[in-house]
Amino acid sequence: MTADSIGCFLGNQRLAEQLAFILEVEKLKTVLRRTPLLDRSRVENDAEHTWQLAVMAMVLAEHSDEPVDILRVLRMLLIHDVVEIDAGDTFAYDSVGAASQAERELTAAQRIFALLPQDQAEEFRALWDEFEAKVSAESRFANAIDRLQPLLHNFFTDGGTWPAAGVTTTDVHRRMRPIGVASETLGSLSTRLIELAVERGILVPAPASKADA
Amino acid sequence: MTADSIGCFLGNQRLAEQLAFILEVEKLKTVLRRTPLLDRSRVENDAEHTWQLAVMAMVLAEHSDEPVDILRVLRMLLIHDVVEIDAGDTFAYDSVGAASQAERELTAAQRIFALLPQDQAEEFRALWDEFEAKVSAESRFANAIDRLQPLLHNFFTDGGTWPAAGVTTTDVHRRMRPIGVASETLGSLSTRLIELAVERGILVPAPASKADA
Repeated sequence: MTADSIGCFLGNQRLAEQLAFILEVEKLKTVLRRTPLLDRSRVENDAEHTWQLAVMAMVLAEHSDEPVDILRVLRMLLIHDVVEIDAGDTFAYDSVGAASQAERELTAAQRIFALLPQDQAEEFRALWDEFEAKVSAESRFANAIDRLQPLLHNFFTDGGTWPAAGVTTTDVHRRMRPIGVASETLGSLSTRLIELAVERGILVPAPASKADA
Repeated sequence: MTADSIGCFLGNQRLAEQLAFILEVEKLKTVLRRTPLLDRSRVENDAEHTWQLAVMAMVLAEHSDEPVDILRVLRMLLIHDVVEIDAGDTFAYDSVGAASQAERELTAAQRIFALLPQDQAEEFRALWDEFEAKVSAESRFANAIDRLQPLLHNFFTDGGTWPAAGVTTTDVHRRMRPIGVASETLGSLSTRLIELAVERGILVPAPASKADA
């Protein structure tokens, strides 16, 4: 029995479309990221990562410099990664993958959100567009949380993905810039974590030549 | 470096407590449930399960018979399982485990929410208490979603956990009762899925003697 056939036995086309979406996005549990769990037993997947972002947003919302509608932040976060079911996770420091990322994710958004009844398809797509555009206070805060989470994991797992990716403080500072844009407090936290990571030898400082350039 | 030492270098005790909570509840990714993923590759964990419930609540909220504050539903769902970090997942059809479940989860709630700054500890604990009490419209709907998700997974994986657990329609109908309490539409869906599961031979009907009793 597939999602397609649900409509027949339910006699409720709208609910059938909603279930088809729910069953499809469940695949997010199988999309792996590079980030290790804090216990280092394995890398995390997009679904559990998303849950953690939502909890972080609930706990840390007060640190947004601008007032945010936390419901919109949560709704945006909960669906922001479902495009990776088709497009895959693009590693933060993969410049080759990043080049085609936007196009791949746009195609995915067109397919996946269209599974929903039209009004919800438009609503969810608008949330995804808002997250990507980083223009509203809510999307800036949601993006900040999405950057802070892997920083915490890399820091608390002795460098996490940093050593293998060969990144330096320059790369990490650039990647974490959206945090300070949304929150002075969380921006200071990220800066301090990067400094401490260098002190502890788990992140390579930028080479002098690069820093001078 | 542990969460305890974060406070020292941050000079921000409130943020340090918030981070300690965030780092602690991340363990939810390692708490395994019995429910299989839809692709049957493995069982799901509590963190990704929770993400799925939140998405389902976003999509299906219109089917609640009573109007619900969807933000409170989402906040409740996002933290409702963190007690299982200490208490473990109690299988739905495990009557022995169920006997001590409430006490184990209460002890866990006392420890885990207390990691937060006091105002947030009280707020999160109140959300957890509300979910458990099933008295408000929001908690009834959140509980309905928490029951519907494993039903969908068992149905779409040819019985999932049902055969090994030796459950019958009587057990599943009892377990799914909260769905119909919150939503006539979703209650009809669950009843229909149980009927179809019997027709397809993936769920055992209640024995006649038991049904007559």
